[in-house]
Amino acid sequence: MKSKQVSIIAGGVGFIGTNLLQKLVQENRSVVVIDNFSRGKLSHISALIKNKRVDFIHADLADREQCKSAFKKVNELSKIQEVWHLAANSDIPAGIEKPDVDLKDTFLTTLEILRVMKEYNIPDLYFASSSAVYGDFGNTLLHENIGPLLPISNYGAMKLASEALISAAIESYLERAVLFRFPNVVGVPATHGVILDFFNKLRKTPDELQVLGNGTQQKAYLHVSDLISAMLTIRAAKPSSKVDIVNIGPIDEGVTVKWIAEQVVARINPRARIVFGEGNKGWVGDVPKFSYSTAKLQKYGWCPSLNSAAAILKAIDEITTQFA
Amino acid sequence: MKSKQVSIIAGGVGFIGTNLLQKLVQENRSVVVIDNFSRGKLSHISALIKNKRVDFIHADLADREQCKSAFKKVNELSKIQEVWHLAANSDIPAGIEKPDVDLKDTFLTTLEILRVMKEYNIPDLYFASSSAVYGDFGNTLLHENIGPLLPISNYGAMKLASEALISAAIESYLERAVLFRFPNVVGVPATHGVILDFFNKLRKTPDELQVLGNGTQQKAYLHVSDLISAMLTIRAAKPSSKVDIVNIGPIDEGVTVKWIAEQVVARINPRARIVFGEGNKGWVGDVPKFSYSTAKLQKYGWCPSLNSAAAILKAIDEITTQFA
Repeated sequence: MKSKQVSIIAGGVGFIGTNLLQKLVQENRSVVVIDNFSRGKLSHISALIKNKRVDFIHADLADREQCKSAFKKVNELSKIQEVWHLAANSDIPAGIEKPDVDLKDTFLTTLEILRVMKEYNIPDLYFASSSAVYGDFGNTLLHENIGPLLPISNYGAMKLASEALISAAIESYLERAVLFRFPNVVGVPATHGVILDFFNKLRKTPDELQVLGNGTQQKAYLHVSDLISAMLTIRAAKPSSKVDIVNIGPIDEGVTVKWIAEQVVARINPRARIVFGEGNKGWVGDVPKFSYSTAKLQKYGWCPSLNSAAAILKAIDEITTQFA
Repeated sequence: MKSKQVSIIAGGVGFIGTNLLQKLVQENRSVVVIDNFSRGKLSHISALIKNKRVDFIHADLADREQCKSAFKKVNELSKIQEVWHLAANSDIPAGIEKPDVDLKDTFLTTLEILRVMKEYNIPDLYFASSSAVYGDFGNTLLHENIGPLLPISNYGAMKLASEALISAAIESYLERAVLFRFPNVVGVPATHGVILDFFNKLRKTPDELQVLGNGTQQKAYLHVSDLISAMLTIRAAKPSSKVDIVNIGPIDEGVTVKWIAEQVVARINPRARIVFGEGNKGWVGDVPKFSYSTAKLQKYGWCPSLNSAAAILKAIDEITTQFA
């Protein structure tokens, strides 16, 4: 009997993975991070990797052989207790242009991870799904029991496709799966997202910030520290069923892209002009506004420490430091 | 400007495809059937293929090159108006054992068909989805707005995954998509399903019919002729939105597996003993009972000509002839 129990974080040097790793290490867990550097960087976890409880494997989990060999290696020495599947393409517009990116990085990673979980009898899976699975419901409150789900981006489609596969796997071999439907998440190390886009644009053209769409898109934002604490709260709770779907998000209605642009400009160059585009979508597949129900999450007794505005402001501070 | 307009049936020599082809030919349409013979046979359409309006291309639509070359060939001579995507693995238990079968035949066919529809500006897609996308809701009425969708088979998962991809495609290039959620469909040419299973078993052991599960599984069955008429009714209606999801099924509550076994035995060998298994599931991924709402379909003014029992009895007649 292998005595050492480990957690695996797939996509563990990305934005969310890095923050999760920190928390799992604080819990005194042994963690193996697997990543293909599609978005993340090893430098994101350079402080943590020195900890002897943390290991790193460079592998593309969408590749059958690489995925199998990575898990085999871990399984030979330890009992793998849980997989946190955070590996995905996080660039939504890229997936509209090239659907193969979402197919490979978001969907095939799920398929191959499930295959090895079956092979090595790994019981628990925590999956980073997304509010993008809902599609555009307008002002209708998005709770977990709503349908039909009509995602408007390949990103959302491949997240929903992954949920479906995990659901089928629960029926035949997994012991527990939680499908976390993430909102927009902000913080560091920023690898993508609206704030980072604005920072990058202002570096190129310090006097002008071009915004995609007319700026009225309104969304809720959660700080990554709150996201991690929500997931760990649910993981610690006694599961009511083998598979659970939970929206994660703040309680407020969110902020507009215009407001975010103003905050970034105020911080970086208050004299920069903000130029808006047309329409209320930033890109094809952008959901302009959504009302996200987090009632189910709140029943777990969890509450965000920062609302959308506070999360954005904190992230702007952090990204300023990241850029310094 | 190409004057000749054609319909494509992907999976057109399978069970449903063959029946659809017959109707489209009666509508005086030009049709190109594409199939890889995974389940279907060219002999299924041997009478129809003589019609000069019907062409056949042998290609595996999950293969990027084969899919592209098949559509390119059609597109060079004609304007492709619509694609009926019926290509899929229809053997649910096989997909539980080998998830790659559903991945390839059900999901990757959708991905590749969408890719060529974008390339050749094909406007309309009609997709054979399934009640299996719902998973096991027990006695809850399954209407199109219910959630969350937690399929319990890879078959259902890959159908839901396909729906998701089509939904994203509607946002960026398709003009119209209808996602038909099929019930259990019976008729000929039978390639799979409970009646055919019973026929095959009774051929091997004429005195005993072994039934998977305890026989209490109750499901609604639609005759394939009704299925085709329902789809054509919806296709003819003015669409209320670019993408529509419609449950297709009879109005009754269905019949049990035990009742079907009794009818087949009565027809083939009334002296055969029926032996039941255990549990209310025929196999992992089998949904034991479901109540299917067809209210949305009925709003289109469509009504089935046969209820579940009549559909089963007609199919037993037809399969008897098929076997003769």
